[in-house]
Amino acid sequence: MLQEISEQPEVLERTIAAEREKLVKIGDYLRQKDIDLIVLVARGSSDNASLFGRYLLEVTTGIPVSLAAPSVYTLYNAKMRLKRAVVIGVSQSGEGDDINHVLESAKDGGAFTLAITNEAESTMAKLADETLLIHAGREKSVAATKTYTGQMLHFYMLSSVIGEKGIDYYKIPEFTSKALELKASVEEIAQRYAFMENCVVVGRGMNYGNSYELALKLMETCYVVAERFSSADFFHGPLAIVERRFAVVLFAPTGVTKKSNIELLNRLKELNADSLSITNDDEIASLSSLSIPMPAELDEFLSPIPFIVPAQLFAAYLAEAKGLDPDAPRSLAKVTKTL
Amino acid sequence: MLQEISEQPEVLERTIAAEREKLVKIGDYLRQKDIDLIVLVARGSSDNASLFGRYLLEVTTGIPVSLAAPSVYTLYNAKMRLKRAVVIGVSQSGEGDDINHVLESAKDGGAFTLAITNEAESTMAKLADETLLIHAGREKSVAATKTYTGQMLHFYMLSSVIGEKGIDYYKIPEFTSKALELKASVEEIAQRYAFMENCVVVGRGMNYGNSYELALKLMETCYVVAERFSSADFFHGPLAIVERRFAVVLFAPTGVTKKSNIELLNRLKELNADSLSITNDDEIASLSSLSIPMPAELDEFLSPIPFIVPAQLFAAYLAEAKGLDPDAPRSLAKVTKTL
Repeated sequence: MLQEISEQPEVLERTIAAEREKLVKIGDYLRQKDIDLIVLVARGSSDNASLFGRYLLEVTTGIPVSLAAPSVYTLYNAKMRLKRAVVIGVSQSGEGDDINHVLESAKDGGAFTLAITNEAESTMAKLADETLLIHAGREKSVAATKTYTGQMLHFYMLSSVIGEKGIDYYKIPEFTSKALELKASVEEIAQRYAFMENCVVVGRGMNYGNSYELALKLMETCYVVAERFSSADFFHGPLAIVERRFAVVLFAPTGVTKKSNIELLNRLKELNADSLSITNDDEIASLSSLSIPMPAELDEFLSPIPFIVPAQLFAAYLAEAKGLDPDAPRSLAKVTKTL
Repeated sequence: MLQEISEQPEVLERTIAAEREKLVKIGDYLRQKDIDLIVLVARGSSDNASLFGRYLLEVTTGIPVSLAAPSVYTLYNAKMRLKRAVVIGVSQSGEGDDINHVLESAKDGGAFTLAITNEAESTMAKLADETLLIHAGREKSVAATKTYTGQMLHFYMLSSVIGEKGIDYYKIPEFTSKALELKASVEEIAQRYAFMENCVVVGRGMNYGNSYELALKLMETCYVVAERFSSADFFHGPLAIVERRFAVVLFAPTGVTKKSNIELLNRLKELNADSLSITNDDEIASLSSLSIPMPAELDEFLSPIPFIVPAQLFAAYLAEAKGLDPDAPRSLAKVTKTL
């Protein structure tokens, strides 16, 4: 897992170089169609990447995005009306039976389909009208890392060819390299949480998907019961579980989500909770029990990939601190074939 | 909370009687429009009711449904293209600033808007093109119960006027009454969980929203760190947190989700986990550590409202068993005004 986390800057560079041209063509094609809905289909980490993709695509293109509920197609056999939709399957292996079933059904419903996958020869790649490849090489760890950020990158590239807001996504690999320099300090911080059994991970907007992803990593590699919420939803009930020294981890970049994160940090202080912020904002850092410092010049729209890096490192080092092997989580298999 | 749980059959009866005609008119209007997207906007329990509404509406109408991410509108000021969309705000009080902001923005984007609320004079009711009222009377408990099922009922009524699959929703109040007869046995079962600190709630398809709702109730009234998953997602990582005697609560009706719930129960048995199923299926009951029996003749499509009743009772009695007051959860307010 640590090895694969480190490979991320090259994977991102390689994917940009190899896929950019294909993306431009797909963008041209989609812009002349009258697309009024994007549907993302995924499970697990790919679903978390899609949650990010949803925010990015809606904000930058104005086209509504829906995260598909696979069982609507697989269990209830619904015939969805998708004539003006692009349906995008997102899967590391491209072999999730349910995801592929949804793509087939969406094609029947009139949709244009895309696959985002790490496997060029997968069932999903063959099925979709076009494939966007992640150039990550084999991912061996059960806990996805480099394919998660590779999927996120594809949402940036897609947004840049169909949206109007220009995002300098080609700067992301460099910020991702910088984030890897945090290795030693994250390893040290992780020791403090060796006996943590529960926690809440908070993120909002562009970093909402990251909160799901870190929670999933903590569940699968550290066996921590990790909840995930947006700072807005957290006030609707879940705040009640927080007590003295309860751990809350925040993705808290400077930008539009800052205000609600500051409100939350103030409330957590009153409750004597423990807060660990991944942040590039001094005020947020000073309100947190502990913080992992990110580059001040990192724009919120570019933050999600670099911000997940210390979180991935945290999960890997915390597993070690707990005496666990992050590459061999109990009860899990790499490819899950639920229908 | 217990009082309001008991009022549910009458609230449902009253709402059907008062709103049925209005719904027929709205259905006529929507069928002649070329609607190709439904967007649901909500937070907290209303968001869980909407999660149910999403499955029901997609399966019965074939129109794709998206659960809105309010911050796309409130923080990022996205101008969404919603010309062929119906946007439905769902809020007990009708005073959630963020929900109302999304409705206003959706109107600007060309959408037809509906409000589902318990307050006829609320800001949301005034703002929306049409209002679907829940006739629940004042809801005093911080933990929503009768407005949650009232919102679900409105999705049934809406589905019956725009969809093709006829659902006998008028039978729901009677099944809900029957579920209330479980009071004494649920109170007894709850004692066994007095020292439970974590758990996972599982539901799928029509009962997926219920898994979120019970988890929220357990967090806000019992301070239990409660995760929620579909039985499909649970195999993608989260299963690793389950250990000997770890508690898993399942909404497991007979029907299309049965197969995956049985797979999960078999896996939980191997792991020596503790399973509590709300079910009307003998095979599922026999595979579970404990079960709460529901009527065998209850169709899966009608199960979500009757099935949440024992879950609400479970949360209320568990709070008492833990020495807590379910009507006064720490740290929470009834109306949450996050922007």
